[in-house]
Amino acid sequence: MARLQQNLLTLKADSFAERLQAVAQDVEDVLDRILPPPTTRLHEAMRYSVLGGGKRIRSYFTWAASQLFDVSPQVTLQTAAVIELIHAYSLVHDDLPCMDNADLRRGKPSCHKAFGEATAILVGDALIPLAFQTLSSLDVTSEVRLELIEELGKVTGSQGLVAGQMMDLGQEGPRSTLKELLEQQRLKTGVLFGFAAEAGGILGDAPFHERQALRSFGLLFGKAFQMKDDWLDGCGDAEAIGKPCRQDDEKFTFLNLLGPDLLCEKAEQTLQKALDALSPFESRANFLKEAVGFTI
Amino acid sequence: MARLQQNLLTLKADSFAERLQAVAQDVEDVLDRILPPPTTRLHEAMRYSVLGGGKRIRSYFTWAASQLFDVSPQVTLQTAAVIELIHAYSLVHDDLPCMDNADLRRGKPSCHKAFGEATAILVGDALIPLAFQTLSSLDVTSEVRLELIEELGKVTGSQGLVAGQMMDLGQEGPRSTLKELLEQQRLKTGVLFGFAAEAGGILGDAPFHERQALRSFGLLFGKAFQMKDDWLDGCGDAEAIGKPCRQDDEKFTFLNLLGPDLLCEKAEQTLQKALDALSPFESRANFLKEAVGFTI
Repeated sequence: MARLQQNLLTLKADSFAERLQAVAQDVEDVLDRILPPPTTRLHEAMRYSVLGGGKRIRSYFTWAASQLFDVSPQVTLQTAAVIELIHAYSLVHDDLPCMDNADLRRGKPSCHKAFGEATAILVGDALIPLAFQTLSSLDVTSEVRLELIEELGKVTGSQGLVAGQMMDLGQEGPRSTLKELLEQQRLKTGVLFGFAAEAGGILGDAPFHERQALRSFGLLFGKAFQMKDDWLDGCGDAEAIGKPCRQDDEKFTFLNLLGPDLLCEKAEQTLQKALDALSPFESRANFLKEAVGFTI
Repeated sequence: MARLQQNLLTLKADSFAERLQAVAQDVEDVLDRILPPPTTRLHEAMRYSVLGGGKRIRSYFTWAASQLFDVSPQVTLQTAAVIELIHAYSLVHDDLPCMDNADLRRGKPSCHKAFGEATAILVGDALIPLAFQTLSSLDVTSEVRLELIEELGKVTGSQGLVAGQMMDLGQEGPRSTLKELLEQQRLKTGVLFGFAAEAGGILGDAPFHERQALRSFGLLFGKAFQMKDDWLDGCGDAEAIGKPCRQDDEKFTFLNLLGPDLLCEKAEQTLQKALDALSPFESRANFLKEAVGFTI
């Protein structure tokens, strides 16, 4: 906790990049304590897949949204860590040979490349209950814990993340329209960003319209984030982003559907809508608004 | 064996089959309502994997344990259904090509054979959050819901079911002793039986020693159940049990380690211990005791 205090104390004076890094470091420390020690191969693989990588932008959302309310730093970071557990599981399973068949993740071998396919599947299977279990013992009221658990269930389930991955794999039939792609990406990427921001409002016992505002911000940010990700894959530099590029040339992406110029324009419009969603908080939501600059 | 038979003689063993069937039918109805309608391929595959099969012996445990306390039938069946969701997910993932590579389950093609590997993985990924989400909205006190969620997290996580599957696949290193096999089977089979029985006690706000007694009963039953399963695989009839036999000839099983005679003896001793664990309830636990006859 000493480092946590130190990071949090230095936050006010720092730039967005430094703030993001401080939150990432704090969440990393919490994840290190939530994950079991590496006494088994499974636990080693779980730690390999969760720790030491990622921008932790979802954690930043939970942290920044919590700053709008009176929420303890400890509880904020534990909730952020839960969302990182879910994000990490989804990456491990998405990378599997029968899904995206990705050999690299965050610049190192993907979990199944490092530990084998069976272990990678089981890593995901173990991270999901760990997320729910962690929420069940948060130091907040029972009602808040149950609210978080119910929402996380919706967001990660068959009408959330998993539905998005099914669509992405073409398992729900052929797709060809922008509307279908938007729905796919809302489920696969948006809902978890939406939950990350809304979680700060749930922890802070925020009124309904403020929770909705936070969720909308996250959903819109997620949409823009995915547009940028598609753009990077088609036009970016493999070394800089830590994974191979041009993986999606044949795939159903925003870039293939809109082309680079229209994609940039749409992404900017979406980010503007994300900022507009925060209007109920006026200038108090600056920590969240800063994140928008990150994707431009 | 003599003592075991004597205990069973006092039970209404002839009606157990009917009771089990009634519970199975009720749980099937609840599962049908919990699972989303089959409007997507994913939901179709989830329903395929969960509905219309299985003896529902775990559900019977939750139901029979709940009868010891004042628990509403609705809540009992919903909790039982949650455990069936977890059991079904574990079977779908265990059957995958990189795990047990099983083509058949409950007499029909396994999920990945019917829907493909990616969908089968995602079916499991969606059933886990559905289980937690369902518990979060049970019509019981917040404390009971959180207790069930925390316990389910432990039982299904990296120190429960998933750890057992890792050991079963030999992913945690070579195994050779009975002690190692007992631990593997405790994790892979026992803990979920233990939770199924204990859940009745959690719902009924039972004192600690009664919850422990129910859990011990479930754990010991699970151990005997696995012993019987190994025996059936080696000495049973494929048509009668709905899946291929002699799958485990080369594997690390109770049958290979103990031989058929000693295995039978051990299984009977274990069932006797399971009955003994129920002593705090005296004759009130007859519905649970009946289940022991089922495995003989």
